[in-house]
Amino acid sequence: MNCLYILISLYPYYLNNEIPRLPRVLGVARDKLKNMNTYDTIILGGGPAGVAAGIYAARKKVKTLLISEHLGGQSTVSAVIENWIGDIKLSGFDLLKKLENHLRAQEGIEIITAEKIMAVKKEGKNFSVATDKNNYQTKTVIVATGAKHRQLGVPGEDQFAGKGVAYCSTCDAPMFKNKDVVVVGTGNSGLEAVIDLLPYANKIYLMDVLEKIFGEETLAEKIKSEKVEMLLGTKIKSIEGSQFVEKIIYENIKSGEVKEIPAQGIFVEIGMTPNSDCVKDLVKLNKAKEIEIDHKNMATSVPGIFAAGDVTDVLFKQSSVASGEGVKAALAACGYLGNK
Amino acid sequence: MNCLYILISLYPYYLNNEIPRLPRVLGVARDKLKNMNTYDTIILGGGPAGVAAGIYAARKKVKTLLISEHLGGQSTVSAVIENWIGDIKLSGFDLLKKLENHLRAQEGIEIITAEKIMAVKKEGKNFSVATDKNNYQTKTVIVATGAKHRQLGVPGEDQFAGKGVAYCSTCDAPMFKNKDVVVVGTGNSGLEAVIDLLPYANKIYLMDVLEKIFGEETLAEKIKSEKVEMLLGTKIKSIEGSQFVEKIIYENIKSGEVKEIPAQGIFVEIGMTPNSDCVKDLVKLNKAKEIEIDHKNMATSVPGIFAAGDVTDVLFKQSSVASGEGVKAALAACGYLGNK
Repeated sequence: MNCLYILISLYPYYLNNEIPRLPRVLGVARDKLKNMNTYDTIILGGGPAGVAAGIYAARKKVKTLLISEHLGGQSTVSAVIENWIGDIKLSGFDLLKKLENHLRAQEGIEIITAEKIMAVKKEGKNFSVATDKNNYQTKTVIVATGAKHRQLGVPGEDQFAGKGVAYCSTCDAPMFKNKDVVVVGTGNSGLEAVIDLLPYANKIYLMDVLEKIFGEETLAEKIKSEKVEMLLGTKIKSIEGSQFVEKIIYENIKSGEVKEIPAQGIFVEIGMTPNSDCVKDLVKLNKAKEIEIDHKNMATSVPGIFAAGDVTDVLFKQSSVASGEGVKAALAACGYLGNK
Repeated sequence: MNCLYILISLYPYYLNNEIPRLPRVLGVARDKLKNMNTYDTIILGGGPAGVAAGIYAARKKVKTLLISEHLGGQSTVSAVIENWIGDIKLSGFDLLKKLENHLRAQEGIEIITAEKIMAVKKEGKNFSVATDKNNYQTKTVIVATGAKHRQLGVPGEDQFAGKGVAYCSTCDAPMFKNKDVVVVGTGNSGLEAVIDLLPYANKIYLMDVLEKIFGEETLAEKIKSEKVEMLLGTKIKSIEGSQFVEKIIYENIKSGEVKEIPAQGIFVEIGMTPNSDCVKDLVKLNKAKEIEIDHKNMATSVPGIFAAGDVTDVLFKQSSVASGEGVKAALAACGYLGNK
């Protein structure tokens, strides 16, 4: 039957002496089919930036796919978030649910989780996005893959994440009022963590494997306080407690002596790694491997690729900032689609 | 008794032969007192940008004052908001309450409402902020005074604001599914409103006092649809209804003929006025009177003055964007204070 149908379909072409042109006809059909499956925008990442972009793109009725291995972003592990603008207090899980519910309430958006984003490639005017399972075509890409805080890699770090182990002092310093806290890292972010903690904490231990402060002198000046005790040339061995962090075990690198500090918190401030691998051969990155963007319209160095949130060179890695930047990226991508 | 106290206080100076230096001593005391009353940052405006800045500045424990005639911003009048990231649906009043509660939960922040912001002036290294009732000193200023949508100024416009009368198609187009809607204004924002409404509305009437489309040709191309009816050279007389908008009364400018259209919505897209008067002689504005900012760190042309939200040249006037930009402005101001 199928064969018969094909022959009948071809008959008009035969009559018009167009059979030699058939491969071209099939080519056009293939392109049309491909175009039907081409998204207007694919959003990579499901944290606050990606979700915000998804909500706005879907409301603009552009054909949108959001791919994220897990939804929610870095804050998902937080026990308490007090700086998501509009909510006095919520848990990381609450924020994840709010974002996910708002995203899934959008008509027409397609959401793929449990696929790992591998690479974005330019294909003519469009782009292809490869995951570990599939390949997708799109006219624009919004990269919102976030960043990972570098971890110490010691026992207890994962177990107590959000239960005393923290990575963002701007977010979490106020939760350590009258507590004893360890800050690991004497780079600028470590010193800033101490400055953020000074008005709140009872006692701050600043630790680093280095024997000298690594960050800027102006910041180092500001941490001079009776509250701050330097424990340089030390290495964290483990983080211990029952439900929450209770003590930090560390080693003096020179003497090998192992000691413990009773502490209710530990800020790990040893840097961030942006998840920019999937576009590293395509768009311009800075030395820290962050995607360089035009902060007005979230454009990257490649027209049609936009980026938002912690994967970019945005100065402030904050959920509410990422969310606003995701909105900007979606509206800029829609503008780009409109002018194309 | 007071006199006696002063005389005793002066005695050591008398002994040290320092009485001629007393005016200088008093001067230093006056400056110290003034410094004690100098804020680290004054935030002008209590919409999403101002509130976000206030929350972050307060959490950084800098001495913060927020001045806003009314809290909440432009969205307060909206009946339904579906694009405040994280909340599927809330009213303008709900958003106002969320923002206000989060702001007021911050320890140490001072909030002044019911004062009208008049002017910001540079005073040495610092700034003064004059309201209609007082004068405040500060080291940094965050301008988040927002913008006003230009209004038609016709009967019914205020009454039905958020009840069919809308000013932001990106925000509200999806709420007019299968409805008949009037768009006033054929500039770019009017044409964009028609484009935003096309996937949703049943019928769109585009009206303008002008007899020709004023916006860009590329946008004008996109509104060619059976759904769109042009009613150019017309003027809105009034907006009528019971609880929600039901009909629009308009006049043909040439013939003077008055007609009505049954419609459930009207988008007024005749421009915006940024509330930038208080800094107009101080910081650089663009032609639209928006404050020109560095979109990475929210700095204006004057060091120490930052700006965020709809009063700036941000491309996308959206509450979630303003909120993110407010966070950026507060953190940038804190960085500026730290380096000062």
